[in-house]
Amino acid sequence: MKFGVVLFPSKQLQDVANSYRKRYDPNYALIAPHLTVKEAFEASEDEIQEVVKALRDVANRTTPFTLQVTRVSSFSPVNNVLYLKVDRNNALHELYDNLHTGALSQETEYAFVPHITIGQKLSDDEHLDVYSQLKLVDVAHEEEVDRFHLLYQLENETWTVFETFRFGKE
Amino acid sequence: MKFGVVLFPSKQLQDVANSYRKRYDPNYALIAPHLTVKEAFEASEDEIQEVVKALRDVANRTTPFTLQVTRVSSFSPVNNVLYLKVDRNNALHELYDNLHTGALSQETEYAFVPHITIGQKLSDDEHLDVYSQLKLVDVAHEEEVDRFHLLYQLENETWTVFETFRFGKE
Repeated sequence: MKFGVVLFPSKQLQDVANSYRKRYDPNYALIAPHLTVKEAFEASEDEIQEVVKALRDVANRTTPFTLQVTRVSSFSPVNNVLYLKVDRNNALHELYDNLHTGALSQETEYAFVPHITIGQKLSDDEHLDVYSQLKLVDVAHEEEVDRFHLLYQLENETWTVFETFRFGKE
Repeated sequence: MKFGVVLFPSKQLQDVANSYRKRYDPNYALIAPHLTVKEAFEASEDEIQEVVKALRDVANRTTPFTLQVTRVSSFSPVNNVLYLKVDRNNALHELYDNLHTGALSQETEYAFVPHITIGQKLSDDEHLDVYSQLKLVDVAHEEEVDRFHLLYQLENETWTVFETFRFGKE
């Protein structure tokens, strides 16, 4: 089974992200707008129990923090991915590090660039066109993060929440 | 903001439900297969904090129980809704009652018939046709339930998980 860990932003920010994703993100129907803090990994139903314990431990040690979205950015030329850029944030990077150490160790393909994807799999022309418009849009937004979610993927490639972990609990 | 409380069945049962929902349920893309234990209700972001406390209290008092799916059934002639019928289950009914008392009181349109919808908004002919096939299918399945999820609805009508509540915790 494939699992992943994400932050779901507030309804307000999800609605903004979806207004773009509807047109520019083929994964629009598979998952709600999110900020991935641990990329997809494989685990059996037995193994995930250990992962859940480790995640709970990380959540308990984490203090709620503020997330700041500044503008629309792009991973081009590496990938034609448009995203809401999230400001460099020590608490968020520390969370990411904690989600990739000990029992949660995992090979990662990219360095952590916190982002909320709003468009992907765009052709070069489309990417250029959409990006030139969206980089002028004011998407500045700030909110408190106090939980992360462990998800798993169904056969139809949609993602379901397995469990929510609130920070500093227990 | 619109909220609701559901059980998400295991991946195995969700995959089975989705194999039907894909064809017969227009809400397929809006929410994962689920068993509603508290119908949609309105709450502000302030009000929901009180609801969360009450839900946590219910979850703490609830013991994991077994859910048995027996066969495909229909709400026809009231509604052309096809669903996986969930066996009468005292623990589940008690959970439902606890989710509708005190701070969680709520007007409900129907008596509680635990079900996992797999088809809806079917024409009479389509309903008759699909139901006559599906009522012969063996969907017998049993699993443990140890949590419920509080969801909220986005502007595009999809549902996102706000928080998971595990039974008997804290």
